[in-house]
Amino acid sequence: MKNDLTPLEPKADKDTVRRHNLSLVLRAVHDAGEATRAGIAAHVGLTRAAVSSLVEQLLGYGFVSECGKTSSGQAGRPGTVLKVSRTGPAGLGVEINIDYIAVCVVDLVGTDRVRLAEHGDNRGLPPSDVLARAARLAARALTAAAEQELTPVGAHVALPGLVTGGTVRQAPNLGWRRVPVEGLFAQALSALRPDHRALPVSSDNEANAAALAELWFGAGTEGVRSFLYLTGEIGVGGALVLRGELLRGEHGFAGEIGHMVVDPDGPRCRCGARGCLEQYAGQSALLRAAGIDENAGAPGVTELGRRARDGDPTALAALDRAGRRLGLAVSGAVNLFDPDAVMLGGVYRELMDWLAPAVERELAPRVVSGLWRGGQTRLRAASPLGDAVRGAAGVVVREVLADPAAYAER
Amino acid sequence: MKNDLTPLEPKADKDTVRRHNLSLVLRAVHDAGEATRAGIAAHVGLTRAAVSSLVEQLLGYGFVSECGKTSSGQAGRPGTVLKVSRTGPAGLGVEINIDYIAVCVVDLVGTDRVRLAEHGDNRGLPPSDVLARAARLAARALTAAAEQELTPVGAHVALPGLVTGGTVRQAPNLGWRRVPVEGLFAQALSALRPDHRALPVSSDNEANAAALAELWFGAGTEGVRSFLYLTGEIGVGGALVLRGELLRGEHGFAGEIGHMVVDPDGPRCRCGARGCLEQYAGQSALLRAAGIDENAGAPGVTELGRRARDGDPTALAALDRAGRRLGLAVSGAVNLFDPDAVMLGGVYRELMDWLAPAVERELAPRVVSGLWRGGQTRLRAASPLGDAVRGAAGVVVREVLADPAAYAER
Repeated sequence: MKNDLTPLEPKADKDTVRRHNLSLVLRAVHDAGEATRAGIAAHVGLTRAAVSSLVEQLLGYGFVSECGKTSSGQAGRPGTVLKVSRTGPAGLGVEINIDYIAVCVVDLVGTDRVRLAEHGDNRGLPPSDVLARAARLAARALTAAAEQELTPVGAHVALPGLVTGGTVRQAPNLGWRRVPVEGLFAQALSALRPDHRALPVSSDNEANAAALAELWFGAGTEGVRSFLYLTGEIGVGGALVLRGELLRGEHGFAGEIGHMVVDPDGPRCRCGARGCLEQYAGQSALLRAAGIDENAGAPGVTELGRRARDGDPTALAALDRAGRRLGLAVSGAVNLFDPDAVMLGGVYRELMDWLAPAVERELAPRVVSGLWRGGQTRLRAASPLGDAVRGAAGVVVREVLADPAAYAER
Repeated sequence: MKNDLTPLEPKADKDTVRRHNLSLVLRAVHDAGEATRAGIAAHVGLTRAAVSSLVEQLLGYGFVSECGKTSSGQAGRPGTVLKVSRTGPAGLGVEINIDYIAVCVVDLVGTDRVRLAEHGDNRGLPPSDVLARAARLAARALTAAAEQELTPVGAHVALPGLVTGGTVRQAPNLGWRRVPVEGLFAQALSALRPDHRALPVSSDNEANAAALAELWFGAGTEGVRSFLYLTGEIGVGGALVLRGELLRGEHGFAGEIGHMVVDPDGPRCRCGARGCLEQYAGQSALLRAAGIDENAGAPGVTELGRRARDGDPTALAALDRAGRRLGLAVSGAVNLFDPDAVMLGGVYRELMDWLAPAVERELAPRVVSGLWRGGQTRLRAASPLGDAVRGAAGVVVREVLADPAAYAER
């Protein structure tokens, strides 16, 4: 029983109802890809007249467009086909990671229309310099978006650290502590693009953004609604999605699987403790164990994959060891959460063939529900359609879908 | 954004609205302890007239009673004081654990009015025998409840295992697999008490029931809404409460912290895997490490506490070791969930003085948010007012509070 004390009364504020239903209709078109007024009415349970009036408003805002009639082969009278517009409001996603910065503009449909990335080690640089670089990249993305008649209505910044209230509380791998990331980014961007001075900026942990991308653009679209998401980067990020909602925890710091203990007496981690998963399955640890320069970045990971494919025993042993430790941590998380699936993202995606068998070997006996052996819970590579920067842009898009009227008034 | 497709319409089924608001008023009285009609109206946001009509219905059902007037010292006109009745509908809770069975009748206020327990090892006995013993105890509780004019309207059975759809899927410490526990208990009880043949029976994991008891009768009443709950029994049970709701997971098996790995090469567990927390911090492991008969049960735990108080080095070392392993597992769970508090229940409660320092020593450096050191997340002994059997009875009481009309019609 939810302990809500909201009375259910047979009256509600008319404007609230209309805004809610406007979102309902826009999401119905969004989720279906294309829809007719009659189809929407049947789907959302509003009258045909109410839907028509709401659709007129959405057409006026430019959030949906009409494109032809349904063919006479379909049931009922032919209706006008509605689709979500590929121009107009969009989301700007920004990902600041240890060794790259990426930006992305996603339209209301969910397609990434602009994508830019810059590689380079961000460790040890002043946060304001890194954020200024991100703003320069974002300014270029805004220009490219404008050329496609897209107008980002918000920016969302994803970072590898504990993010709360617009501030990176700590990002050990970047060496950041208490960095007011939203303010610094907004300032840098508005200096470059005064026309975007009022662009609202929000921020979150990058694994959260990647998990949301998986939910909105990847496995979530196939019906996987509860999953544990791990992303292998320099660190190991984690996030939990439960029944279609990101689990944030009481202070916004949930999902930190990278610091689960896999060997209490193991090597010291950047976080200060010993034997964290990151020390075995983070990108640096993995490359180091395989005899590759731990700072080699993405080319190093590709090299590791190449060596594994060639049967190099050091590479295979490093992957097996990392997979086993991943399996230990994941088994604990699966026993705690009981999700439908476990997704491996980031660099794990291209190393899946060698990591997965070791992970599975630990999971099969350790998941006490027996659901792992039963195949009801599965290990999957994260979708190539979902990554942190797209998820970050998606956060803005979802805000528009949730209350289109708020964005039409701007 | 929740992806709900329910349209918000300025009309709703009248009967649904009335039942919802009836529950709202009953819960308002329940949560406040005592209330006037005017106070309820102000609290729930319904008109005074609507509240009066709903209160009349609740008085008619016997779910609330009037008891005097507010003193003239209080603000406003003196009003009639309403309280939730201490007679009438109640919940029957049943806990089947490894070495005891307990039953409890809880009234609508939340007080346990009948409590019976029988000690004795249930391991290796046929499940139907154990459930028949539980039914005999329950039948005695029903008699004692009737003497107090209480009528249990449902029974909820809590067990140390994976419970789903009325069946214990597995309870390794009891040696049970696929036991239809609701059916067996209902059958045994209705054979003893044909007058309770129609009593609905539900079931759940015992740590879930204990965590709900903590939420409803313990720390939850002080505002702790998100917590990790560990209960030390023969095994180690766990449950997660997030913002006032029990986290059940996708298949109902969330919270299994007892099988988190604290040493990948440790001793083999009853679950089949190696190095599970239970092998270090379960009651049997703890007693064994302290040089006490591992089957000594509750008296053994009391003896362990006595030895620790006397400074016995073996006892202190055993508690320190168990506490350290508990700290490792808990740190992982805190990093994943980011709760407000961690509660130690079961036998951990009386061993808290010696376990807590070791647990804290692991948590302070390992909780990456730093909230542990900051004191924002805390380790607490579970409340003596909450235990699994009371939580089980509470599940039934909450069902009545959520829809009183459904229980008045019986």
